[in-house]
Amino acid sequence: MAETKVGIIMGSQSDWPTMKEAADVLDELGVPYEARIVSAHRTPDRLWDYGKTAVDRGLQVIIAGAGGAAHLPGMMASKTRVPVIGVPVQTKALSGVDSLYSILQMPRGYPVATMAIGGAGAKNAGLLAAQMLAMHDTALAERLDAWRAALSASIPEVPTDD
Amino acid sequence: MAETKVGIIMGSQSDWPTMKEAADVLDELGVPYEARIVSAHRTPDRLWDYGKTAVDRGLQVIIAGAGGAAHLPGMMASKTRVPVIGVPVQTKALSGVDSLYSILQMPRGYPVATMAIGGAGAKNAGLLAAQMLAMHDTALAERLDAWRAALSASIPEVPTDD
Amino acid sequence: MAETKVGIIMGSQSDWPTMKEAADVLDELGVPYEARIVSAHRTPDRLWDYGKTAVDRGLQVIIAGAGGAAHLPGMMASKTRVPVIGVPVQTKALSGVDSLYSILQMPRGYPVATMAIGGAGAKNAGLLAAQMLAMHDTALAERLDAWRAALSASIPEVPTDD
Amino acid sequence: MAETKVGIIMGSQSDWPTMKEAADVLDELGVPYEARIVSAHRTPDRLWDYGKTAVDRGLQVIIAGAGGAAHLPGMMASKTRVPVIGVPVQTKALSGVDSLYSILQMPRGYPVATMAIGGAGAKNAGLLAAQMLAMHDTALAERLDAWRAALSASIPEVPTDD
Amino acid sequence: MAETKVGIIMGSQSDWPTMKEAADVLDELGVPYEARIVSAHRTPDRLWDYGKTAVDRGLQVIIAGAGGAAHLPGMMASKTRVPVIGVPVQTKALSGVDSLYSILQMPRGYPVATMAIGGAGAKNAGLLAAQMLAMHDTALAERLDAWRAALSASIPEVPTDD
Amino acid sequence: MAETKVGIIMGSQSDWPTMKEAADVLDELGVPYEARIVSAHRTPDRLWDYGKTAVDRGLQVIIAGAGGAAHLPGMMASKTRVPVIGVPVQTKALSGVDSLYSILQMPRGYPVATMAIGGAGAKNAGLLAAQMLAMHDTALAERLDAWRAALSASIPEVPTDD
Amino acid sequence: MAETKVGIIMGSQSDWPTMKEAADVLDELGVPYEARIVSAHRTPDRLWDYGKTAVDRGLQVIIAGAGGAAHLPGMMASKTRVPVIGVPVQTKALSGVDSLYSILQMPRGYPVATMAIGGAGAKNAGLLAAQMLAMHDTALAERLDAWRAALSASIPEVPTDD
Amino acid sequence: MAETKVGIIMGSQSDWPTMKEAADVLDELGVPYEARIVSAHRTPDRLWDYGKTAVDRGLQVIIAGAGGAAHLPGMMASKTRVPVIGVPVQTKALSGVDSLYSILQMPRGYPVATMAIGGAGAKNAGLLAAQMLAMHDTALAERLDAWRAALSASIPEVPTDD
Repeated sequence: MAETKVGIIMGSQSDWPTMKEAADVLDELGVPYEARIVSAHRTPDRLWDYGKTAVDRGLQVIIAGAGGAAHLPGMMASKTRVPVIGVPVQTKALSGVDSLYSILQMPRGYPVATMAIGGAGAKNAGLLAAQMLAMHDTALAERLDAWRAALSASIPEVPTDD
Repeated sequence: MAETKVGIIMGSQSDWPTMKEAADVLDELGVPYEARIVSAHRTPDRLWDYGKTAVDRGLQVIIAGAGGAAHLPGMMASKTRVPVIGVPVQTKALSGVDSLYSILQMPRGYPVATMAIGGAGAKNAGLLAAQMLAMHDTALAERLDAWRAALSASIPEVPTDD
Repeated sequence: MAETKVGIIMGSQSDWPTMKEAADVLDELGVPYEARIVSAHRTPDRLWDYGKTAVDRGLQVIIAGAGGAAHLPGMMASKTRVPVIGVPVQTKALSGVDSLYSILQMPRGYPVATMAIGGAGAKNAGLLAAQMLAMHDTALAERLDAWRAALSASIPEVPTDD
Repeated sequence: MAETKVGIIMGSQSDWPTMKEAADVLDELGVPYEARIVSAHRTPDRLWDYGKTAVDRGLQVIIAGAGGAAHLPGMMASKTRVPVIGVPVQTKALSGVDSLYSILQMPRGYPVATMAIGGAGAKNAGLLAAQMLAMHDTALAERLDAWRAALSASIPEVPTDD
Repeated sequence: MAETKVGIIMGSQSDWPTMKEAADVLDELGVPYEARIVSAHRTPDRLWDYGKTAVDRGLQVIIAGAGGAAHLPGMMASKTRVPVIGVPVQTKALSGVDSLYSILQMPRGYPVATMAIGGAGAKNAGLLAAQMLAMHDTALAERLDAWRAALSASIPEVPTDD
Repeated sequence: MAETKVGIIMGSQSDWPTMKEAADVLDELGVPYEARIVSAHRTPDRLWDYGKTAVDRGLQVIIAGAGGAAHLPGMMASKTRVPVIGVPVQTKALSGVDSLYSILQMPRGYPVATMAIGGAGAKNAGLLAAQMLAMHDTALAERLDAWRAALSASIPEVPTDD
Repeated sequence: MAETKVGIIMGSQSDWPTMKEAADVLDELGVPYEARIVSAHRTPDRLWDYGKTAVDRGLQVIIAGAGGAAHLPGMMASKTRVPVIGVPVQTKALSGVDSLYSILQMPRGYPVATMAIGGAGAKNAGLLAAQMLAMHDTALAERLDAWRAALSASIPEVPTDD
Repeated sequence: MAETKVGIIMGSQSDWPTMKEAADVLDELGVPYEARIVSAHRTPDRLWDYGKTAVDRGLQVIIAGAGGAAHLPGMMASKTRVPVIGVPVQTKALSGVDSLYSILQMPRGYPVATMAIGGAGAKNAGLLAAQMLAMHDTALAERLDAWRAALSASIPEVPTDD
């Protein structure tokens, strides 16, 4: 059975409709992943354990989505040297700018690879994880190249009224 | 010797010039405190320990200052039921709005009592800690009332050119 | 009969759907409170009286919600040394950033413990009030610890499609 | 002796360098005014008295400058039907946007005539006060027209290097 | 017949639902007004004429509402010394912050009394116009005082679930 | 057959409902144009070719609409000296401010004539293209003058309830 | 003598240090221009005249720079069909975002080709004016191509410490 | 000789003081890199070539810094599947928020791993590149762990006045 290489974590069940775009594109590309709810504030010990065991469990990338005072991606980046990709989930009052600043503005030492706010960011998190893995996985690199070529080929030349 | 009732923590030495305003006003009001550097990202285990032992050590209020992706106040609020007051330290590019959103926008369950950005916020954090303690400390309540009365009395009626 | 320890005040009836989250969580935790409409601009004398009598009436925390040029929390903080927790109610054009800045940016001397914009902020205001009271109320502290433990325990490990 | 028709009030001595532009233009236009420090938070009773006596004292316009959680203009507008002109003083972290939102976003019932942030706003507050008074003061109207004509006439046609 | 003392102008028919709040409150207070569409960009000559004849026509206040690059209030302020009250109409992409900045940030010499964004601002524009007129109209001053007293009296003490 | 003088390009089919306003006004004014989808990221070579051949194909203006990290207008401005008009398409989380900044903030050397966010900007892009062409096309200049006169004439004097 | 084809106008002398970058690049490219101060608010009649005579005077492009409630570019666009390029001048409190919104958010009918905030925008305004003129001026097109080629050629491959 | 695994590119020489922090930390960690100026607008063909040859040249990560309409990182992400880390360089008028939005808000298909604005972002870009490489480089992983441990160990417990 394929080893899980990507961990998709999120602060709450309500983030899943956004984060599912990451899972879906990893499915398309044949990258094995796990999806978990890890709340920085409600389950801090779960976060601690996830971070501490990430390297030993063979995780090569962690995708972390969160909204508001989105501490999950940054705290995970503090607990492991596995690269962390952060997805700012859109929020009601501040439209995800709060999520963005909390994820993005990390101090020297603990990068979080921040993606666009919302679903586009989640999908791109999946793709970036695949790009990282593809550097040492020729078959995945080829699938990724094909995926990108198909995307380019899908663009019509002339816009159409519907 | 007076028991330490307030913990002033901050993410880095560079926050001290801001956070010192909290310490100074606690000194003025005769409230015993300690000041510690506790970095959410660089010393997460120190944060864990501080939060877990806060109640047992008799801390009654925690003042936490941080800048940028300021995770310290919110993570501390996750680890203890001791009230946490958060001070957003002003930053270079985003002027502390990043610090503010990271501290303020906490999810249901883990409040952080957020203060104004910068030094005014730090001073007010000290005052708010004193106000909390004064509910069960008549002598402190009187000192606080006097402090407030003196502030009001210091305002001249007519502005002056210098 | 239990003494009222928390005053929940708000600028208008339209703030009640937001502020009710504070009341509900105080109900859950068994903390006696009162809810009042106190408009800084339409009933300034009511504000004055509420502030002046707060200590004598035995109030230990005031939760104040308001939207727009939200002067209620800050003016209340000027009138009493009882700790004031401010809740920025979301607004139509500026999404509550106007409420937030009016509540947050208090000058040295008069802190307002500012919560997140909207309902999450209101719920956290109730919790913060309980945390303050719990420092001198062992039974409440235990209920609060149980409430927090239940919240943590409610988080599933794996997200689910509905 | 000329009756004082305009009250210039401000939250603190530190607002005077900004608010002095209002005073100066009233001097130029020969409009009698008084300048006072009235802090909404530090001297709320002074604010109350000023507002309650404004009509009886013959004040016809009040100019109120404040920074941060600038509650002075709006609270004054709540206490008197004398028109209140608000000047948002520039602040350090939020550049006066906090002052602006606190002054501008008043609820139905209590308008504050908000000016631009900073010195230009203060000068225009003086001019607007004069424009209001000029509706029933022909001599002032003529001085104002002359002032405006002189301003227009002062603009050169071609920019010059210095 | 009562002389028209207030001109309500707006940049387009689409601003009327907002600006009607100004007209309605003037109706309530018995202040005669006219409502006109004057587009700064589409009918600049109409703007010119309106401004140039305002004093002679006996207008004592002009209320101007506009959205987006809202030039109407400021250009009107340039053409007449009659006080101009500006109402920033809410917009789609920028929520009226564009309207606000265009109306508010006038240069020295040409104040616009800026109100809150949207309908609350329009209603307050009507009230501010009445406050200006009331300084020389005792009967209107009494109606205004009654209006304000009624607003204050309408606020219940306790919020209610519906 | 009329030579195509204006190229309307856009980053994706989803931009067409916005960009169609540019096409429609060019139709009204009798300006021949083409509409194409040219994605900066998905079809970069198409962008390259479009830019390199623009002068030789006789294009005199290029209108480019895009949303988010809207690189199309600026990259096109880098590839050709044909004037490029940029239209920021409104986006979900950031309301088109992301599109605006990406289009507007070009470095010295490569201007993009940036329009308002959304449909108004698209329509104005069409009009600006016509204004550019009209400098050397008397018949178009007359049609444009008539179009502008008709717009001015369409504005009623008095707003109406519907 | 070369006919003036470009009018550079600005709201005040203080805009000239910014707008001079437009003039300088037009000098480099050999494009004849004039520079004038035209204040929308202080000299509205000058604005009117400039706009009304622009076509007859042979102006082919107008570059208009302004700061704050920057009404000059938009009002000019209302008065003439000559293309107007707008330059938002950086301001003190709002950093030019006020200027930007006032210039950019024009209603349907009156485009302003908005440039980046500050000096880069001014230089690009000059270049865009040249690009417009180059469509019917082969010699200028060649000078422009050379200017662009020189800019590209000036970029070193490897960054250097100084 | 060590193979170059990381390409540090930037839009202009003026970005180097910021981007040098990425280079410096790669030096500390013993990761071979190259630094190049690649301007999206001034040297688009250089960008094309760099992107097309990246995989064949053995580059495993590209760090791209840019300011303003910062198109370099996103366009590079369009040209290669090598992971691209983007660093928003701080700007004068918009403080790097323009750079941030242009880099961050990429459409589905082309992720850019966005870092904090300015020097902290550049340093973290270097660290993230090292973290990616460390997944298949045990020696580097150990150096990285040591680097992180040293950072944690450097934090004093108590803040000091200087």
